[in-house]
Amino acid sequence: MTTLAITGGQVLLPDITVARADVLIDQDDGEILEIGDDLAGDVDETLDASDSLVTPGFVNGHCHVAMTLLRGYADDKSLDAWLQEDIWPTEAELTPEDVNLGAKLGLLEMIKSGTTAFADMYFMVPQIADAVEEAGLRARLGHGIVTVASDDEEARADAREGLEVARELDGRADGRISTAFMPHSLTTVGAEYLDEFVPQAREIGVPIHYHANETANEVAPIVEERGVRPMAYAAERGMVEPEDFIAHGVHLDESEIALLAEAGTSVIHCPASNMKLASGMAPVQRMLDAGVTVGIGTDGAASNNDLSMLDEARDAAMIGKIAGEDASAVPAEAVVEMMTQGSADAIGLDTGYLEEGAPADLAVIDLEQAHLTPRHDLVSHLAYAAAAADVRHTVCDGQVLMRDREVLSLDADAVRTQASEAAEALVARAEE
Amino acid sequence: MTTLAITGGQVLLPDITVARADVLIDQDDGEILEIGDDLAGDVDETLDASDSLVTPGFVNGHCHVAMTLLRGYADDKSLDAWLQEDIWPTEAELTPEDVNLGAKLGLLEMIKSGTTAFADMYFMVPQIADAVEEAGLRARLGHGIVTVASDDEEARADAREGLEVARELDGRADGRISTAFMPHSLTTVGAEYLDEFVPQAREIGVPIHYHANETANEVAPIVEERGVRPMAYAAERGMVEPEDFIAHGVHLDESEIALLAEAGTSVIHCPASNMKLASGMAPVQRMLDAGVTVGIGTDGAASNNDLSMLDEARDAAMIGKIAGEDASAVPAEAVVEMMTQGSADAIGLDTGYLEEGAPADLAVIDLEQAHLTPRHDLVSHLAYAAAAADVRHTVCDGQVLMRDREVLSLDADAVRTQASEAAEALVARAEE
Repeated sequence: MTTLAITGGQVLLPDITVARADVLIDQDDGEILEIGDDLAGDVDETLDASDSLVTPGFVNGHCHVAMTLLRGYADDKSLDAWLQEDIWPTEAELTPEDVNLGAKLGLLEMIKSGTTAFADMYFMVPQIADAVEEAGLRARLGHGIVTVASDDEEARADAREGLEVARELDGRADGRISTAFMPHSLTTVGAEYLDEFVPQAREIGVPIHYHANETANEVAPIVEERGVRPMAYAAERGMVEPEDFIAHGVHLDESEIALLAEAGTSVIHCPASNMKLASGMAPVQRMLDAGVTVGIGTDGAASNNDLSMLDEARDAAMIGKIAGEDASAVPAEAVVEMMTQGSADAIGLDTGYLEEGAPADLAVIDLEQAHLTPRHDLVSHLAYAAAAADVRHTVCDGQVLMRDREVLSLDADAVRTQASEAAEALVARAEE
Repeated sequence: MTTLAITGGQVLLPDITVARADVLIDQDDGEILEIGDDLAGDVDETLDASDSLVTPGFVNGHCHVAMTLLRGYADDKSLDAWLQEDIWPTEAELTPEDVNLGAKLGLLEMIKSGTTAFADMYFMVPQIADAVEEAGLRARLGHGIVTVASDDEEARADAREGLEVARELDGRADGRISTAFMPHSLTTVGAEYLDEFVPQAREIGVPIHYHANETANEVAPIVEERGVRPMAYAAERGMVEPEDFIAHGVHLDESEIALLAEAGTSVIHCPASNMKLASGMAPVQRMLDAGVTVGIGTDGAASNNDLSMLDEARDAAMIGKIAGEDASAVPAEAVVEMMTQGSADAIGLDTGYLEEGAPADLAVIDLEQAHLTPRHDLVSHLAYAAAAADVRHTVCDGQVLMRDREVLSLDADAVRTQASEAAEALVARAEE
């Protein structure tokens, strides 16, 4: 057995309290052996966590990681204009190598900011899986199916690709990669395709993940054409099950929140993207009060513009208070829970908590910083003051992905250089 | 003449465009001598800015820097409860040394995050001025006057202290310190004291700075008792002049925005504090459209919980879109302008822009970061993706306050240690 010890730190426990403890990890099984004071015995490798906070690795519940190539390419536009004028025309030029490089760039940023697991919807998913395998994170990946602009043959081919990705990539990277069936949204995939292919996804046994109720523009046509709210429409299509999770959920009414709570379907809250695209404010405290499992996601870097879950948690707490018109809404403890266990439960991965027998997925936050002084409350610091650059070490599945701010699983300089070149060439092709 | 050159970088120019240039500084006068490509001649000191963006030093338009001691002490509460239950009882225990240490801790964070000038309202202001002198920043300081809980003698003494601070500290630290007369707010200072002391402040020749229209609770009593909106009430008191600036301005109606625009009175927008305390969303785009000068401030660290203007600019852009229900509201260029020239103009300091003859106040942002890759648009990166830890060098008044992320003007370890001890002892006294 090869062992790794994280020593000298404070540890964030599953009840969102902090205690002084060391963490001993079995690297062969990728599991936590013990959490306690003064662990005995020899260890093969040690990570110093003195003056640091050991947290579960953060779980990014909704991303399009390859879009990192388009970070800062088009800002300050509404979702529809941004997609139609800038993002889709550029994405049409993406090559498999671009997608692999964009994913690696995003994964590099995730490792540097303490994220160890994520859910991702995109296309050319095998290239994303390759990047995940190399980078060492956990992921639930899916192919984003869009049928609205396609003829029937293209639409079916796209849906079949969604099934194939769900079937073929599940379990890859020593089990670190899981999959889901991912129709893009309730308005971009026709009902006939949902009715035909969702049952086939159930047979494979994967969750369904889709964008829902992100903008008011997405809700109105369903209400008008179908006479029911979008989540009721989705339930009719069999897409509101305990393992399923939606992204955004900005424009959910009380009946939809109740439906999600009863069904056990989870919501991934993407506060930065919802603000940047002026999509609106998700009713997060109301969802929590109703018993909905809520996770946090960054969405793609092109509408955020970073992939740091620490930024995203702060955004969730901040906008949650405005949405709830209550400064006690979405408090520090809630966002810390949401960015770890909440997201993990939502996307159905066993991670996001530190205890004996849990997967050894963690981040070590350097507290020796002016902006983390004094230390009245470390949970508050995690929610409101800690930043990506404070992450010293990142461990996933027992493997050290970053030690003392140096990423070990990817060549950071090479990834940045290659991704920059790819992004420049991509934009040149798109603007031709 | 002693000279400093910033070489190899991209420079953010006053029209919020970026150009490749070096910057040559006369350190004796603290001024920029030249901005251009391949500057000739010998220089005494050089700061490397390759793969970096040289920006004006950020200007924090509204702060209570000594409150950094209370970062994370009380979160997730409304303004009234937070002040009355947690902040005021603890502040009552502050010693002059505490205030000096709290200020130094905040100034350390400001230097590390590229801020070179700020406006500050607090008490024991001479201790804050000492910290500013040592740290090397520019500041407009004032004593926050509160009369509501005082008898007439105490109220007058407090107002006189406000005048004395405005008179005595102006011009200190080789002119880096300016002052203002700072009645805390329109509801915490009685009209009789405003009417008596504001004209005396005008005789000294300093601006008036106060909190206004921060919460709905602050607006209602004025409307009820006086029959006019708060800014009209302030104008009657002579507090809406071109040199004056208010903090927050969340609950401003159209008549008040028009009044501010016509008077030339500026507003400091504090988005993080307004979200965290659920105070509301300031109508920033409407103010900009009306021609109001808008700056950005962090408010105190206890309601933020950090002092990074890069975080604050991102918050301003994000919540500005939700407030305006428009993704094109408060775009990247606007927040970059607001965090530099906007704040500087608002608080009346000559800084916030880089050109020949301008004060040599600047920050150098390291672009060699995963989260700043690729580089489609550096103004977008400054607004949406750059973080405090990306600041490599900070220069104020021609002096290097931080070189390669090492603060030179303050002993960072000593400040953090002493401030931590002071914060712990303070809270122990307050909770006795």
